[in-house]
Amino acid sequence: MKVFVIGIGLIGGSFAIDIKAAFNEAEIYGIDKSEENLDKALSLGIIDQKADLEDLDKANVVITAIPVDATVKVLPNILDKIDDECLVFDAGSTKKKLCDVISDHPKRRNYLAAHPIAGTEFSGPQAAIANLYRGKTNIICEVEKTAFKLQERAMEIFTRLGMRIRYMDPASHDIHIAYVSHLSHISSFMLGKTVIEKEKNERDIFDLAGSGFASTVRLAKSSPAMWAPIFKHNKENVIETLDEYIANLTQFKKLMEADNFEEIYKEMEDTNHIKSILKGIS
Amino acid sequence: MKVFVIGIGLIGGSFAIDIKAAFNEAEIYGIDKSEENLDKALSLGIIDQKADLEDLDKANVVITAIPVDATVKVLPNILDKIDDECLVFDAGSTKKKLCDVISDHPKRRNYLAAHPIAGTEFSGPQAAIANLYRGKTNIICEVEKTAFKLQERAMEIFTRLGMRIRYMDPASHDIHIAYVSHLSHISSFMLGKTVIEKEKNERDIFDLAGSGFASTVRLAKSSPAMWAPIFKHNKENVIETLDEYIANLTQFKKLMEADNFEEIYKEMEDTNHIKSILKGIS
Repeated sequence: MKVFVIGIGLIGGSFAIDIKAAFNEAEIYGIDKSEENLDKALSLGIIDQKADLEDLDKANVVITAIPVDATVKVLPNILDKIDDECLVFDAGSTKKKLCDVISDHPKRRNYLAAHPIAGTEFSGPQAAIANLYRGKTNIICEVEKTAFKLQERAMEIFTRLGMRIRYMDPASHDIHIAYVSHLSHISSFMLGKTVIEKEKNERDIFDLAGSGFASTVRLAKSSPAMWAPIFKHNKENVIETLDEYIANLTQFKKLMEADNFEEIYKEMEDTNHIKSILKGIS
Repeated sequence: MKVFVIGIGLIGGSFAIDIKAAFNEAEIYGIDKSEENLDKALSLGIIDQKADLEDLDKANVVITAIPVDATVKVLPNILDKIDDECLVFDAGSTKKKLCDVISDHPKRRNYLAAHPIAGTEFSGPQAAIANLYRGKTNIICEVEKTAFKLQERAMEIFTRLGMRIRYMDPASHDIHIAYVSHLSHISSFMLGKTVIEKEKNERDIFDLAGSGFASTVRLAKSSPAMWAPIFKHNKENVIETLDEYIANLTQFKKLMEADNFEEIYKEMEDTNHIKSILKGIS
């Protein structure tokens, strides 16, 4: 099985590592606009060979793990180049624009729209790790538009990597994921910004910050190259979440100004049951 | 050494566990308004005996680990009751109101204002753990107002528990901690609230939420009984941080509305160096 991974960073590299471990016969070809990343991936043993888009006619599986705006541009070309039996799936954090752009492509049936909910705040091939996807959710959109045989090949990969599958339409995916993923990143980036702006003397932050702060700003370490395009793609949904988040923060502030700490207690108590909702995620 | 711990939850209980391990001769007395917590602490072996405020004349060390508004009320009474050689320190997340309330007390020299930056999102005696304080920062305020001999006794405890010490005046403490701790809690609680409000079907949150979301809302599991009084005590500073946080979020939203994703990229890139600031905290 010849697997071509386009974008050999955290996400693509981690797919490469696990697929190689799970499929004896897998050969991993890396494609990346950064020659440096390809060399690193090769020396780390994440890929077997460097390749480029012209080689895609040899592929059995193509995985795109590049920023979502780049995927939208390149996906039609990928489908143009591949063999009729080749499976293409992506790992992008938005799904609607991607599904739209290839909806009328003659090889639409070769593509599976996927979003594995997995990652860390790090990036690049050196951030790729084994078992990143084990126990994680993979959201599949418009599964009915992918050829049966290629659905099966994809499920075989996802199952061997330990993922559980959820099916969803692209528009619903983009709305829900705005709440449980995209908004968290903005809240974290802006928290980091607010504290850095205030604390010019950074030693002070370091000395006073505890694990709670570290946890809350962890996502502010994420790659802007990956995240700016996500916010662009999911602009309307993300703005809606931001409106609601800002309204809740403003209301909290008003309760404080009015010395209504009973209501503040109640707000926190009502939100505490996030404990039971999140049980099992860490 | 007779150590009286007032409030035998996560913070007080963890002090009890470590002090017992670090000082052979330590006897731990627990005081708590909840008889159930005291019984739990006794059966978990966290305390040696139950006690009440009337017993404080026998204490060598008193640690208060109760909500900050309760500490403000009870601290003068504690100082009234203790022996002249007894050390009292607290673990509260605000310091100014506490230092103010006992500034003219005849036993001011027996009190050390402390804020160990340590904790988890859990609460109660069952949440108490060994080594919670190891490697953590302990902020001491107005150290010059505590008797030399009692400063030494406190430092002996903090050192054996593995803490590093930072000195700060109470007003500065309350400002800085508003940024690196209190604001994080509000951002997390309101993020949890925003998502819960939207996602009435909670299975959907659970299925789509990844480790990034879990990390960002972790603090929304915190105890309202502990946190409402902290926000009340530090009202002005916290409102200032909220104003700045809301302004940054609003500006981010405006950049999105204006399709200025280059500037959004730059904002995230500028905040990325939180990586190096936070190195070593987790």
